[in-house]
Amino acid sequence: MDLINLQNPVFATYAIAAGIMLLKGVAMSWLTVARLISENAGMLNPEDLRKTPFNMNPDPSQLLPNDRVNRIRRIQQNDLENLPYFFVAGLLYVTTAPSLWLAQVLFYGYAATRIAHFAAYYTAQNHEVRAALWTPGSLVIVYMAGATLLGAF
Amino acid sequence: MDLINLQNPVFATYAIAAGIMLLKGVAMSWLTVARLISENAGMLNPEDLRKTPFNMNPDPSQLLPNDRVNRIRRIQQNDLENLPYFFVAGLLYVTTAPSLWLAQVLFYGYAATRIAHFAAYYTAQNHEVRAALWTPGSLVIVYMAGATLLGAF
Amino acid sequence: MDLINLQNPVFATYAIAAGIMLLKGVAMSWLTVARLISENAGMLNPEDLRKTPFNMNPDPSQLLPNDRVNRIRRIQQNDLENLPYFFVAGLLYVTTAPSLWLAQVLFYGYAATRIAHFAAYYTAQNHEVRAALWTPGSLVIVYMAGATLLGAF
Repeated sequence: MDLINLQNPVFATYAIAAGIMLLKGVAMSWLTVARLISENAGMLNPEDLRKTPFNMNPDPSQLLPNDRVNRIRRIQQNDLENLPYFFVAGLLYVTTAPSLWLAQVLFYGYAATRIAHFAAYYTAQNHEVRAALWTPGSLVIVYMAGATLLGAF
Repeated sequence: MDLINLQNPVFATYAIAAGIMLLKGVAMSWLTVARLISENAGMLNPEDLRKTPFNMNPDPSQLLPNDRVNRIRRIQQNDLENLPYFFVAGLLYVTTAPSLWLAQVLFYGYAATRIAHFAAYYTAQNHEVRAALWTPGSLVIVYMAGATLLGAF
Repeated sequence: MDLINLQNPVFATYAIAAGIMLLKGVAMSWLTVARLISENAGMLNPEDLRKTPFNMNPDPSQLLPNDRVNRIRRIQQNDLENLPYFFVAGLLYVTTAPSLWLAQVLFYGYAATRIAHFAAYYTAQNHEVRAALWTPGSLVIVYMAGATLLGAF
């Protein structure tokens, strides 16, 4: 049976969750760009201080850390520490031919908590809120990796 | 022939190595959490200095770099620079239908050297030890990417 | 129909683009190593200041930020923020059975702009040049993720 196929409902579920997470992840780059423009600061490269159409009044302070830009970078880094593992764990989990309802709970649950985690981080909620929204997603990855190991043995 | 299937021994080998590497990668996040708690320092966000049940005595010094926390972050960053490439290169390599013994050498060899690299980094061994344990894994990725290019042409 | 197979020309196209991007991504690690050696600076770990065969005259200044090393690290970070999403979006896009010519435009276009982005970043071109070469690749990922969502529904 060919499992990696949109005709397989479990894979289609994975594709939807992964597609949403891809858009979410890429959006962090665009949000960083938007913040760099609105703050006109938080740049990383010496060459960004050249006078160009997009930086008419360069100033060395533009290379200093900017918390509004760095907040998005920290959110992006959190994605990079999580999403690649989800993408791989989810694809491997599909090959264990799990039940559709459990796959839906895991895939959509992951996506939902990651979006909620973004909202909490973006609005600077307390650490406890971030942790409560980060933990389920991490456990989903651990569960799917464990189920894959069991299935492969 | 359907290659991305746990009935394919080469893919099952990949799934085992990738599953172990997933657990290893995710463990770095949990280890960071453990270190943040045991050090009660090394935090990154201004909001982490609020007085909450998990931080009863906030102090600005908690946002300063903490080497015991940062060591785990550096190990995690090293994973992020390597594991995603391994996951993709390994999956592509499976589609070239390699011999099982070579796939086992590459996949399990990668996993073994990454775990040894973690042990060396965690215990602050000399740079030479880290480099000797990092290099084989990087070469495995290069080899598998090259074999995929050859197979695809 | 089995889509994840080098007999499928769309998947073979993906495998070629992904294989090239894997080699490109891994090359950043090797380039960092080369720069660390040529600069004899830009190290990150306290233990790197031990006197060893590869560091005969350790000096605390070796742990200070070094812009020639950090340029490569920034390029590498840019890869980590982009390539994993491309790998996943591309694989999912293959499962939507797109036309070969469009897949070639997207996959090879992505690879070409990422290599040009590297050249621009490496030679410290203006921000506008970097942005112009980064944007198409990001849009390719967004397009492929969107096409996957449409195909999965």
